Amino acid sequence: MQAGDLSSEEPKFQVRRLQISDKSKGFIELLRQLTVCDSVSDKDFEDRFQEISSLGDHHVICVIEDECSGKIIATGSVFIENKFLRNCGKVGHIEDVVVDTNARGMQLGKKIIAFLMDHACLMGCYKVILDCSLENRAFYEKCGFKQKEIQMVKYFV
Amino acid sequence: MQAGDLSSEEPKFQVRRLQISDKSKGFIELLRQLTVCDSVSDKDFEDRFQEISSLGDHHVICVIEDECSGKIIATGSVFIENKFLRNCGKVGHIEDVVVDTNARGMQLGKKIIAFLMDHACLMGCYKVILDCSLENRAFYEKCGFKQKEIQMVKYFV
Repeated sequence: MQAGDLSSEEPKFQVRRLQISDKSKGFIELLRQLTVCDSVSDKDFEDRFQEISSLGDHHVICVIEDECSGKIIATGSVFIENKFLRNCGKVGHIEDVVVDTNARGMQLGKKIIAFLMDHACLMGCYKVILDCSLENRAFYEKCGFKQKEIQMVKYFV
Repeated sequence: MQAGDLSSEEPKFQVRRLQISDKSKGFIELLRQLTVCDSVSDKDFEDRFQEISSLGDHHVICVIEDECSGKIIATGSVFIENKFLRNCGKVGHIEDVVVDTNARGMQLGKKIIAFLMDHACLMGCYKVILDCSLENRAFYEKCGFKQKEIQMVKYFV
């Protein structure tokens, strides 16, 4: 190894698709930083993993694993909605983006969003959308998004 | 028929699921009131209809047909997103709600939203969400929704 070639030893924080083994790497605990997320049994996790996987490229969850700790430190998802409007167009919906509080400042959120946007673009979407809090608007603007509408919600439980 | 039993002759404006024959009843023209929607060939329509139908109850498009004119005068859709968070919860995403400009004031929008909300609830969703313009906020508040976040968008084309 040449002097100055230390970059190859640095963590690369590559984005990859969720694997079933990621449950034991803190994936659920990471989601818990976003919202309510009680413990999930291995059976429930596997069932949900298979349900989502059955949609193939139409619903993709990606993660970043810290190769040093073996923990999942960032995630996000996108699903592709088939429409009739826009000449039978497609829209990518980005959901559940979270970066571990201990892994902030390393541009991992941008890596996740870039991965999801690339996927939506490759799938032929004419746009990608997401909902976020006002305080996260600046982050998404840096990713190339613009504010457009408002989100309305109705809870059943 | 008894006097005063005229109600049975009035249009009922029942909500039903989209059928492939609705293309010839002005379904695409109705979507055109919402956004860009060029003519769609019968083949493209059928292909997209089959793609959406293959998801079964996970992606439902509903319509209201005017029984007098035989035209589709209102529509809306909901798709069910399977999540890991919220204990492997589900979220209903409402999209593409539109009522014909000539059929406003008959509560058809409320009928469409009620149908889509009922479906999401029956599918076990813990919430249903949608994005709308500020000017439509009051309508959705009457339907039981509350404003929560902001929508961000990135167009590819």
